[in-house]
Amino acid sequence: MVDIWQNAMDHAVTIARRAGEVVREALHEDRKVMTKSSSVDLVTQTDQKVEQLIIQSVKEKFPTHRFIGEESVAAGEVCELTDSPTWIIDPIDGTTNFVHTFPFVAVSIGFSVNKQSEFGVVYSCLEDKMFTARRGRGAFCNDQPLSVSDQEDIKQSVIATEFGSSRDPEAVNNIFTSLRNIVSLPIHGVRGAGSAAINLCLVASGCVEAYYEIGIHVWDIAAGSLIVTEAGGILLDVEGGPVDLMSRRILAANNTTIADRLIREIQSFSPPRDDEEVTQ
Amino acid sequence: MVDIWQNAMDHAVTIARRAGEVVREALHEDRKVMTKSSSVDLVTQTDQKVEQLIIQSVKEKFPTHRFIGEESVAAGEVCELTDSPTWIIDPIDGTTNFVHTFPFVAVSIGFSVNKQSEFGVVYSCLEDKMFTARRGRGAFCNDQPLSVSDQEDIKQSVIATEFGSSRDPEAVNNIFTSLRNIVSLPIHGVRGAGSAAINLCLVASGCVEAYYEIGIHVWDIAAGSLIVTEAGGILLDVEGGPVDLMSRRILAANNTTIADRLIREIQSFSPPRDDEEVTQ
Repeated sequence: MVDIWQNAMDHAVTIARRAGEVVREALHEDRKVMTKSSSVDLVTQTDQKVEQLIIQSVKEKFPTHRFIGEESVAAGEVCELTDSPTWIIDPIDGTTNFVHTFPFVAVSIGFSVNKQSEFGVVYSCLEDKMFTARRGRGAFCNDQPLSVSDQEDIKQSVIATEFGSSRDPEAVNNIFTSLRNIVSLPIHGVRGAGSAAINLCLVASGCVEAYYEIGIHVWDIAAGSLIVTEAGGILLDVEGGPVDLMSRRILAANNTTIADRLIREIQSFSPPRDDEEVTQ
Repeated sequence: MVDIWQNAMDHAVTIARRAGEVVREALHEDRKVMTKSSSVDLVTQTDQKVEQLIIQSVKEKFPTHRFIGEESVAAGEVCELTDSPTWIIDPIDGTTNFVHTFPFVAVSIGFSVNKQSEFGVVYSCLEDKMFTARRGRGAFCNDQPLSVSDQEDIKQSVIATEFGSSRDPEAVNNIFTSLRNIVSLPIHGVRGAGSAAINLCLVASGCVEAYYEIGIHVWDIAAGSLIVTEAGGILLDVEGGPVDLMSRRILAANNTTIADRLIREIQSFSPPRDDEEVTQ
């Protein structure tokens, strides 16, 4: 079988590395910070510049492909996943980290055809780790194969999550209740890289058993979610059932035992969907 | 003035790097995990082996010096800080990270004379970052000078803290109440490296504005606290007032504005002191 998407994936790796260089260089410059959905939902000119760099470069090589990009959607473009080949881009996943020079900052590029993920590339550019996955062909970090943790005991587990950028008291309530339930199981610990893409790569690498979050967007998780499943992990909705990448909710775990135990402790809620305007 | 402790500091850097190599190599081996104060307070044979390696090496060069080492205290030695030159050692700060191969694992070596910190060395061995400070001579990471963030607005800040290894419901209550208060200010975000020593180095590097925790031990913070002050930061007790490294409580911040704002939100409590048996 001819692998028709290998060219596209090779290009994604090349452009992610180039984008990461731009991000690293920008760390030495003044970073003018603007806000989006809340006073703690940050964006910089580098986010916008890097997204344009990626989209322009892909358009030249693949002029018929479509895009869902974090900053394009913020600028008013629709967030719609069709059957067409679609690049799903977060130019800087972990913008708060980028603003504060905290060492987890990623360029995330997912690619879907017929609404199915074909490859995912997450470049953790301050760590210089290139995470990649191609559907059916495994997941890798700097070309070394990845596999999830084989831990089945929740009490021996480390779980990744985030407080997110919503400060709506109801959402904060649910987030704290869930986390407290999980800490008290007890578990070994809680971690959060401040980047959904990197949290997913931490699941794929076996550094944490699971990652869950409510409030993320499709561009945060499109690439990393394939890296998890290709490393042997699973994706679910936080209430169980199949994951829906547009639903703003994800649970990525090493296995169903750990996932099921977490689902019992997570107090779920439903932010507006990423594709809300389209489906209404 | 002759710098009588420079030899000791040079030796600390050399032995921290050697210890870090042992830690890195051990990541590829089976890590047998034991527990200490609670089911989530972990220790491995590598912690014990690395502490012995450091102590033996220092004893050969400085036979009259004293030691406070995490694993020696766990094995029954008294935790007493006298006026004698004393090495305060955490062979693996971030043992949970080490067990889970999470990328923040540090060797921490502090050194006090007349109960005053003379130098601190924190080697983040998976990142290969050597943090050093000598009293009155600044703080460095891989020989590059460090300085804390100049942010004065708590709402533009990222704060580091940890859930710790106590699962006592009262302590967990206080930890969650404090954190919720702080998240709701609101702040840009919460991070936690899973290592007190590295959290302190993140303050010194300006990646987070402040770090606070209740439940840490003197060996977790002896080295990193000097790195914070030599990078221009401050140390306080979580209720304000002077820090007491034996009190199991610390607030390290970039400046008093940020520190004072946090103190108003932290619901404090007092675990048993590190030197409790000595002072009774």
